[in-house]
Amino acid sequence: MLDTQSIQAIQCIVGEKNLLYDPARIKAYNCDAYTAEKAEPTAVVFPETTEQVSLLVQYFYQHGIAFLPRGAGTGLSGGATPTHHEVIINLVKMDKILSIDYENHRAVVQPGFVNLHLTQKIASHGFYYAPDPSSQSVCTIGGNVAENSGGSHCLKYGVTTNHVVAVKCVLPTGRIVELGENFGDAVGYDLLGVVVGSEGTLGIVTEITVKILKKPESVKTLLALFDRVEDASDTVSALIRHGIIPAACEMMDKLTLYAVDKSHYRVGYPSDIEAVLLIEVDGLEAGVDDVAAEVMNVCTAHHVRTVKLAANDAERDLWWKSRKMAFPAIGRISNDYLVQDGVIPRSQLTHVLETIAALSQQFGLRVANVFHAGDGNLHPLICYDARNPEELARAVMLGQQILELCVDVGGSITGEHGVGIEKIQQMAYMYNELDLNAQSRLRQIFDPLGLCNPGKILPTPQSCGDRPTRHGVVSIPSSL
Amino acid sequence: MLDTQSIQAIQCIVGEKNLLYDPARIKAYNCDAYTAEKAEPTAVVFPETTEQVSLLVQYFYQHGIAFLPRGAGTGLSGGATPTHHEVIINLVKMDKILSIDYENHRAVVQPGFVNLHLTQKIASHGFYYAPDPSSQSVCTIGGNVAENSGGSHCLKYGVTTNHVVAVKCVLPTGRIVELGENFGDAVGYDLLGVVVGSEGTLGIVTEITVKILKKPESVKTLLALFDRVEDASDTVSALIRHGIIPAACEMMDKLTLYAVDKSHYRVGYPSDIEAVLLIEVDGLEAGVDDVAAEVMNVCTAHHVRTVKLAANDAERDLWWKSRKMAFPAIGRISNDYLVQDGVIPRSQLTHVLETIAALSQQFGLRVANVFHAGDGNLHPLICYDARNPEELARAVMLGQQILELCVDVGGSITGEHGVGIEKIQQMAYMYNELDLNAQSRLRQIFDPLGLCNPGKILPTPQSCGDRPTRHGVVSIPSSL
Repeated sequence: MLDTQSIQAIQCIVGEKNLLYDPARIKAYNCDAYTAEKAEPTAVVFPETTEQVSLLVQYFYQHGIAFLPRGAGTGLSGGATPTHHEVIINLVKMDKILSIDYENHRAVVQPGFVNLHLTQKIASHGFYYAPDPSSQSVCTIGGNVAENSGGSHCLKYGVTTNHVVAVKCVLPTGRIVELGENFGDAVGYDLLGVVVGSEGTLGIVTEITVKILKKPESVKTLLALFDRVEDASDTVSALIRHGIIPAACEMMDKLTLYAVDKSHYRVGYPSDIEAVLLIEVDGLEAGVDDVAAEVMNVCTAHHVRTVKLAANDAERDLWWKSRKMAFPAIGRISNDYLVQDGVIPRSQLTHVLETIAALSQQFGLRVANVFHAGDGNLHPLICYDARNPEELARAVMLGQQILELCVDVGGSITGEHGVGIEKIQQMAYMYNELDLNAQSRLRQIFDPLGLCNPGKILPTPQSCGDRPTRHGVVSIPSSL
Repeated sequence: MLDTQSIQAIQCIVGEKNLLYDPARIKAYNCDAYTAEKAEPTAVVFPETTEQVSLLVQYFYQHGIAFLPRGAGTGLSGGATPTHHEVIINLVKMDKILSIDYENHRAVVQPGFVNLHLTQKIASHGFYYAPDPSSQSVCTIGGNVAENSGGSHCLKYGVTTNHVVAVKCVLPTGRIVELGENFGDAVGYDLLGVVVGSEGTLGIVTEITVKILKKPESVKTLLALFDRVEDASDTVSALIRHGIIPAACEMMDKLTLYAVDKSHYRVGYPSDIEAVLLIEVDGLEAGVDDVAAEVMNVCTAHHVRTVKLAANDAERDLWWKSRKMAFPAIGRISNDYLVQDGVIPRSQLTHVLETIAALSQQFGLRVANVFHAGDGNLHPLICYDARNPEELARAVMLGQQILELCVDVGGSITGEHGVGIEKIQQMAYMYNELDLNAQSRLRQIFDPLGLCNPGKILPTPQSCGDRPTRHGVVSIPSSL
């Protein structure tokens, strides 16, 4: 609970209407889309300018008050969950587009600007913004910067860090800095690259300059149905081996198909199909038809049952809706589900999917697989019933085993959802103490008092191997 | 000069044959390819393993001896010049390829491995390594990592940082760490991204895991001759506007054409041509012909005099040799030249080229322009005669004005050559004190004693605006 002096100071900065501290009204901010852990914030404040953010943060820093930034709250790893009674700095009112430069392919937006709105705003000029997380219709570009969000089309076009060229950022001490270059690569050390994906722990981004891309002249979307998961996996590797970089290459397995066909976006997949690939190729009108034909040939060489081109935009939209709404669709076949997010070498796809199937049997929990196959970025969805605490615990344990499997085959514990609080234990599985110390030291330069989104990403020493102690502080070793 | 104890200690680590300290034999290491400043090293040591590098660095750190890493010495900004009597750690003996994984598109090399040798080694399997600096036949991949090197084909494929997925690195304190992920993006803070492009100031990279790419099925190369520089510039913007991302898009101006046609690689450009574009498109056989035809249409719409496709590999090779050897070719028309390396928004190409022409007049020095036009990465070559010290000073001043012009139009002072010692003054033109402090603080975590390639990249406080004091130390402010 804030004291009266702090309430007055904050109101003085942002105005009375922009501070919430009534416990009933701030309860909605006790987690983001990672709902397995919840905790109450102290207050929620809605700044409207960079200067207000800076003044707020200066006040918090002078008074030892922990804080964290929040966008739309769609994060999947708990990055915006106030585990340390933080004041939440909600950026939804900073939702303007500041400038668009079509000639040089740049746009400047505030952090609360919704991802999809950017593409909608510039579409009439033939442009779009490439990173497209499934939540793009509601998630904010500020949140995308924090999590270095990916999306279906990141196989060809890269993730958020490849599209952000500069930011204005309020450091945890309250100073305002500009990082990155509008044109050209980093000069000196790449501090922008460190801030992108830092999950709101190194400062609060208040202006973002992104690349906007010319819409491809032509897009062809194919749907390929396979009798065996292995054939679908081999097709993905073979496409890349043939030098084809699809704009997107998504896989869904049998359980996912069953769920999505129960949703509003019913495609009508045959019930005995084991895996579907949704493949998109794009480029100039001239060449795309031939590339699509090559994709079909590769599918045929890998025993596809059927493969077809979307007949029109309506069919293409339906296929994509079916894919993008796959997570919520799982809600139709299971009370609850945990979304995992691991990365593996493409060559390990078949092995890892078989092992997940075996783990699913062993744990007695269904697992649906839907993922960015081209990138080897898996999203196993573990079905469970939260009303049974033992089943929740089993689901969490299965999720951890899947992540450790990803690390064991040479992969990583997160493709695009971040570490947050969800995967903090796996950081110690993936990294040794030295690696983690290096990251802690970096964090300490930005945030010497440990007040900016504390307890996220890096395990505290006592938490390595155990359940992390939420109130520990990040350890600062004396040197690298 | 090293004392006897240090000589024995170093010999103990690397063997007698791997240490040079005779002044006559180490003189060759007094600069890299930025020859405007020279300084003698204390010794040159040739480690053969990561462990040797680590032991050396530990010894240097314990004894307060400054050191710096060196690859092939082709750097253009003085990053390997021993301005602080450093011991040079020469990595040429660490020149092995450690593993190749064709299935997952990865190769692991030592830092002394030559860039072009990687493509040659994997070519028979249909693969290549994308970053292609003009010096690729001699420069090392370790040096490319230090400088985040670009190249002609980086417009479509990205620079070194986009192709390095992981490194083994000896920190300035001697500890060995692994940074990055073989698969998937950075987990936690992107420390790999900070090390790539850090110009040998944050440690010594001893193993590098890079992406290798499948060779495009088909490549078409076009040569377009223009009567006006403006038309060539507009063509570049128009290509990108049409959604065409050429694999390469290089421009050479009249003076450059004159020089290259005097070289061994004579194309026979008409003497009244003002600008040439060398444009390459690649991809699947199926579509490339059509894309090349579109490129021709865009050139025609912008008043090209002639545009033609390379008739065969021999013609293509000649065109590329003529471009890649453009820097040395300037040596045929001028005793000496300074290569600059600025980045500008593509939309400013015409304005900046006109301003450079006016500055050239004003300073009474010829400037040849050859550059990666698609990226807006300029390489003005300032012709001068070093036998006349006043002319050298004038050339340096002209170079600085060109860099400041790049910053003024919204660009940056380096595209791919790094800051080194050459552009250390312009860092203070581009960044304010706060920005520079943030970079200093980052450096200090890696190198608390300031012994690893000191005096590079960051100006010392007293040097901002003045000529940098070579023996100053990097200032460490108490907080961000």
